[in-house]
Amino acid sequence: MSAVPVISTLPNYQVLSSAFDQIRKFVRTTPLIRSDFLSNLIQGEVLVKAESLQITGAFKFRGALYRLLNLDKVQKEQGVTAYSSGNFAAGLAAAGQILNIPVRLVMPHDAPESKIKNARYYGAHITLCDSNTPSREEAASNMAQELAKTHGATLLHPFDDYQIIVGQASVALELQEQLHDMQNNCHHLLCPVGGGSLVAGSSLAFDKDVQVWAIEVDGYQGMNLSLKNGKRSRAPGNTLCDCDALMALEPGVANLDIILQTGVKGITVSSQKVHEAVRLAFSEMNLVLEPSGAVAIAALMEKPELFKNETVVAVGSGGNVDREKYASLLQQ
Amino acid sequence: MSAVPVISTLPNYQVLSSAFDQIRKFVRTTPLIRSDFLSNLIQGEVLVKAESLQITGAFKFRGALYRLLNLDKVQKEQGVTAYSSGNFAAGLAAAGQILNIPVRLVMPHDAPESKIKNARYYGAHITLCDSNTPSREEAASNMAQELAKTHGATLLHPFDDYQIIVGQASVALELQEQLHDMQNNCHHLLCPVGGGSLVAGSSLAFDKDVQVWAIEVDGYQGMNLSLKNGKRSRAPGNTLCDCDALMALEPGVANLDIILQTGVKGITVSSQKVHEAVRLAFSEMNLVLEPSGAVAIAALMEKPELFKNETVVAVGSGGNVDREKYASLLQQ
Repeated sequence: MSAVPVISTLPNYQVLSSAFDQIRKFVRTTPLIRSDFLSNLIQGEVLVKAESLQITGAFKFRGALYRLLNLDKVQKEQGVTAYSSGNFAAGLAAAGQILNIPVRLVMPHDAPESKIKNARYYGAHITLCDSNTPSREEAASNMAQELAKTHGATLLHPFDDYQIIVGQASVALELQEQLHDMQNNCHHLLCPVGGGSLVAGSSLAFDKDVQVWAIEVDGYQGMNLSLKNGKRSRAPGNTLCDCDALMALEPGVANLDIILQTGVKGITVSSQKVHEAVRLAFSEMNLVLEPSGAVAIAALMEKPELFKNETVVAVGSGGNVDREKYASLLQQ
Repeated sequence: MSAVPVISTLPNYQVLSSAFDQIRKFVRTTPLIRSDFLSNLIQGEVLVKAESLQITGAFKFRGALYRLLNLDKVQKEQGVTAYSSGNFAAGLAAAGQILNIPVRLVMPHDAPESKIKNARYYGAHITLCDSNTPSREEAASNMAQELAKTHGATLLHPFDDYQIIVGQASVALELQEQLHDMQNNCHHLLCPVGGGSLVAGSSLAFDKDVQVWAIEVDGYQGMNLSLKNGKRSRAPGNTLCDCDALMALEPGVANLDIILQTGVKGITVSSQKVHEAVRLAFSEMNLVLEPSGAVAIAALMEKPELFKNETVVAVGSGGNVDREKYASLLQQ
C-alpha cells in the first residue's frame, strides 16, 4: 500500500473537537481508574484510561467510526476493505454495522480467536491471511489491496490515515473533560503504540504542558527507533511476542510526521514487564487488559523514576485476549 | 448482634439523594456496559452496571462511606468495628482511611486472600476468625461484638443498617442519571444479594415502574425464602459455594422490611450458571467479576423468558477474586 501524502498543516484542536462531537453519541465514555500501587511507585498520581471497556474492547472503534462517517455516498454504498491484526478489525466491523456500510477484512491467521470472532460477530466478511512475508502485517495488507480492487471498495489503512488519527484523538479529548471534572490535570500521557494512531492523535490534542509518550515492546519498537533516528525506521520484529496489536514494524508516515512535530518521547518495555502489568491491572484494578493494552502500565513499572511526583495517565488501550491465554498470564 | 429496630417510615427519595450528594465526591462513577449477547438472549436491552470498578472493587464502599460520615465526633475518634467476608471490609477500611477514622475488622479465615490484603492495605486492623459455628458469618459477628466492647468502638453491621442501605442506594441514583443521559430507562434492575443492602437501597430509589429483583445463589437463598414466606427465613447454607460475598444465611431485618414493602421479587441461580456468567463477563465485556458479582448476569442466562423485550440493568457488584481462582474459572 502506498504511503499517505504528508500534509503541511496538522489538524488543529477545532478539527479534533468537531470529530469528537460527530462520534460522541456512538462511543462509550471509558472510566479513569486510579492505581494506588503505581501512584505510590512514582510518589505521584497514576490514572488508567480503560479503553478496554470501549465498544469492541479497544479504542480502535473511535477512529474507524469517524473514518466511515466521512466517506462519500458512493463509497459508503461500495463498502470498505482493510487489514488488521484484530482490534481495528472489530472496531471497523462494529462501525460498519452501525452505519450500514459493508466491511471486508483481512486478518492474520494467527490473530487471537476472540478478535476474529469479535469482527465476525459484527457482520464483517473476514479473509484470513497465512503468509508472514515480508511481514505478517504487510502480507495481510497486500491481500486487502487485491480485495479492494476486486470489489470496488475503499481501501483503509488501520493507522496511517489522518482521519483515523483524528478519530483516535477523542480518547485524549474525553480524558481532558474527565480531568476537568475532577479538577485535575496531568503531566504525562502514556500511549501504547502499534502503528501510532492513538499516540499521534493524542499528541495533537495536548499542548506542550503535557508530555505524550509512545510506548512499544522490545523487538517491535519501530516508532521508538524512528524517534531516535528522526526518520521512519524498521524494528527487527524477530522476537516472540504476545502483544499482537503492536506488531507493526514501522510507524505510519502520517503518524510519525505528527509525533516528530509534537515532541512525543518514547519508551520500550520488555515482554516480562508487560506480563506483570497485565497481572497488576487484574489484581489491583479489576481490569482485563490484553498484553498490548498493558504496555503503558509496564512503562511506569519499568521506569518509575521518569515520572516522580507527577500526574500520569496510562491508556489501557484494549482488553481482547483469549481466555486460555489470559488464564496462563494470571498463573505465571 | 441484636437486630436493628424496624422504622415505620422508609427513607424517602430526598434522603437518598442527600446521601448521594454527600458521598459523590469520594465515589467513582462506574460504567454501564451493554451486553450484546444478553440483549440478543432476551430480545431486549441488557446493561451491566460495573461496580467491580468502584473504589475497593465493589459497591460496598458507598454505604460504608456514608455510614462513617454520619458518626458523631466522639464515635469518629473511637473508631468502628465490623465483621465482613471481604468487600464490606475493604470498603470500610478505605472509607476510614479517607475520613481518618480507625477501623477494626473481623474477617473469616477463609475469605479470599485478595480481600484480606485489600482491607489491610487501607490501614484497617484485621482479626481473622476461624470458627464456623453457628455459621461463618455469625461467628465473626460475635467476635466483632467483643472487640467493639474492648475498644469502646462503634459496632457496625455490614448490611442490616438503614444508613448503609441508604448509602448503597447511590448505585441506583447514579444509574438513573446515566439512563437519563442516554435518554433510556429500564424495566428491571437485578441485584446480587448477600444480606440485602444493595437490593433494599435500590428498591427505595425506584418507583413501581421498575421491578427490582433479589438474586441469590442456591443454598444461600435466605432473601428468596423470606420473600416466599413473608417473614425472615434461613437458608440451609450447606453447599460448597464460591460466592463468598453472598453467604449470609438470613437477610437483614431492616433489609427484609424494606423489600417486602417495595415489592422486590427474587430469583435463585445455580453455581454452574454463575461460573458461565463470570466467563461471559470476561469474554464479551472485558469485565472481571467475582462469582458473587456475576449472579445477576447468571439470572438472565437462567431465566431469559422473564425479561423478554425489556430493558434490564444487571449490577456486577464486585470483582475481587484471587488470581488462581479466576484463572481456574476461565479454564472450565
